[in-house]
Amino acid sequence: MNDTPQLRIAGLAGSLRRGSYNRAALKAAIELAPAGMTIEIIELGALPLYNDDIRVEGYPPAVHAYREKIRGADGVLFATPEFNYSVSAPLKNAIDWGSRVPDPPYVGKATAIISASVSPIGGARAQYHLRHMCVSLNCFCMNQPQVYIGEAAKKFDAGLKLIDQNVRDELAKFLVAFRDYVIRLKR
Amino acid sequence: MNDTPQLRIAGLAGSLRRGSYNRAALKAAIELAPAGMTIEIIELGALPLYNDDIRVEGYPPAVHAYREKIRGADGVLFATPEFNYSVSAPLKNAIDWGSRVPDPPYVGKATAIISASVSPIGGARAQYHLRHMCVSLNCFCMNQPQVYIGEAAKKFDAGLKLIDQNVRDELAKFLVAFRDYVIRLKR
Amino acid sequence: MNDTPQLRIAGLAGSLRRGSYNRAALKAAIELAPAGMTIEIIELGALPLYNDDIRVEGYPPAVHAYREKIRGADGVLFATPEFNYSVSAPLKNAIDWGSRVPDPPYVGKATAIISASVSPIGGARAQYHLRHMCVSLNCFCMNQPQVYIGEAAKKFDAGLKLIDQNVRDELAKFLVAFRDYVIRLKR
Amino acid sequence: MNDTPQLRIAGLAGSLRRGSYNRAALKAAIELAPAGMTIEIIELGALPLYNDDIRVEGYPPAVHAYREKIRGADGVLFATPEFNYSVSAPLKNAIDWGSRVPDPPYVGKATAIISASVSPIGGARAQYHLRHMCVSLNCFCMNQPQVYIGEAAKKFDAGLKLIDQNVRDELAKFLVAFRDYVIRLKR
Repeated sequence: MNDTPQLRIAGLAGSLRRGSYNRAALKAAIELAPAGMTIEIIELGALPLYNDDIRVEGYPPAVHAYREKIRGADGVLFATPEFNYSVSAPLKNAIDWGSRVPDPPYVGKATAIISASVSPIGGARAQYHLRHMCVSLNCFCMNQPQVYIGEAAKKFDAGLKLIDQNVRDELAKFLVAFRDYVIRLKR
Repeated sequence: MNDTPQLRIAGLAGSLRRGSYNRAALKAAIELAPAGMTIEIIELGALPLYNDDIRVEGYPPAVHAYREKIRGADGVLFATPEFNYSVSAPLKNAIDWGSRVPDPPYVGKATAIISASVSPIGGARAQYHLRHMCVSLNCFCMNQPQVYIGEAAKKFDAGLKLIDQNVRDELAKFLVAFRDYVIRLKR
Repeated sequence: MNDTPQLRIAGLAGSLRRGSYNRAALKAAIELAPAGMTIEIIELGALPLYNDDIRVEGYPPAVHAYREKIRGADGVLFATPEFNYSVSAPLKNAIDWGSRVPDPPYVGKATAIISASVSPIGGARAQYHLRHMCVSLNCFCMNQPQVYIGEAAKKFDAGLKLIDQNVRDELAKFLVAFRDYVIRLKR
Repeated sequence: MNDTPQLRIAGLAGSLRRGSYNRAALKAAIELAPAGMTIEIIELGALPLYNDDIRVEGYPPAVHAYREKIRGADGVLFATPEFNYSVSAPLKNAIDWGSRVPDPPYVGKATAIISASVSPIGGARAQYHLRHMCVSLNCFCMNQPQVYIGEAAKKFDAGLKLIDQNVRDELAKFLVAFRDYVIRLKR
């Protein structure tokens, strides 16, 4: 076991509400993560709204801390809701703060996306806007497999535990693939 | 002149920095607006980061004021920068706050998009993400003409005045088309 | 009944295979169309692959016939599969041939989109690429409601009849909304 | 020199017209390719319009030949025009034929995109639709650098030679980066 690299993954949930299915999906991912991978949820609610004048004066402590969390991670797992057919404002805000010089922390990083939504579409439109943003971040977003948790209200219980066994299995396979992808990119 | 409807347009600049070319483009639009149309810039910097728990408790005063400005307008003019190949976080935030029940204020509204960017691409990728969001807002985004202010640093002077005559002419024509579009949709 | 305008809608199915769920969805739409609207399926398989040198020499008969069908229609209903997260090649081909001068036939036309797919996502990514194309065509694509026929293999029977009652009801409402939208745009 | 791998790149031009700026850009790429890389243009005009019934009966010879060219290449360079804010129909057609089982030839392949267009936007919207398709193809599309040849009529001479020195330099750097990217992915 000593030779297994212990990969640290930063998990970002795009929704700030307490009952977020996307944070709940990240919690399920923490539980389902394969050997060799741990996921830590990075909170995005304390970041100020992006303003380039603030950046020029120096990153505020919350932004600095967030950027260092990304920098220190071996990979990033986005869990995005779909708001207006795109990623949520809090996630876009984290991406904008994370994209700037000096030494932007997403560059070259392995990333992957999951999404949860009450719609059957499961966040597909948000995932595809986010993939464009990943090109700009110059990170490497895993192509396949993909996880869309549609009709989320049926997949999580009242305590926000992911109870749908098919989705649990899909997510577990996705995380194994992501672990291997992170390792491959680190070579 | 009495019969000319006086259309009120809400102008949203997606960038919060003082030196924003997009706010400068809105200021040029105010100046170039045709007879029958006035444009008022709505500031987006005071909106909190979107959190649905806040919405459920009741829209904060800044959000309420913003939504009423949109509701009271005959049309909305977006001036969007391109951050990570999409709209900026502050603009996405305004869109997310503006999309929610009860009585979401963008529904049925005439909208139009301009963008300014230092790149020759002039914000095209941001405009096309924004058009997807407009479908979700259920507003009616004008197709043509389109204004992309590329290489913005050459088009505005140090005082942020739009000095490129070709762009000024394009923008003036765009605003005439938008005025006619707003009138057509109000019938 | 004499005062009811009889709207003629051109229906385009993006898939050429005989067992296409999208053509089957158009056939269901023909059956479910409200009073005042008839839908005719326009076949796309005889159009040559787009080549601008051919256009310059003169539209071939199949292209000319297709363009005149679009021109003569009061509106266009796209039924698009999702191939590689976008519209199919045959539909893109029809769009490219339909977008060219002189007198491009989609300009100002009311359009709407449905999609069918075996995936639960139901073609959402294809619909959102198509919406971008509609901006270029300068047609007016209805925002809401939207129809995504996901898990299509469960919604149609072996004879390609749409048998899912929920989807039938959704589609019927969609067509009423589209009829009203076409009428509104014609004023 | 014996140790330098000789990488073979398949070049696909999305436009079929003789005067295509995108084929001309591929020809410039052939000339500017760095040591260790050769580019061969694969013609797309003989592919039939995608029809899944044809696929089921067996790939026609032209499709088979195209798929084998892709399979045999170390990487693929797309040169896409922007037709209706997306890739052209002939390129979409090649992508659809190239995406199907058995053993789809793009899987795991390194790819990169250039685009030429008479507009200053230079094909950016087409590139970003194409990036979505690349996720579906499960190939690995290089993030950076990017080449957009805007205002193409000024960058090529009457004989379709790329004469703009800035663009030539950009393209040469892009090809070096792509060579390195192909090598990295092959490890």
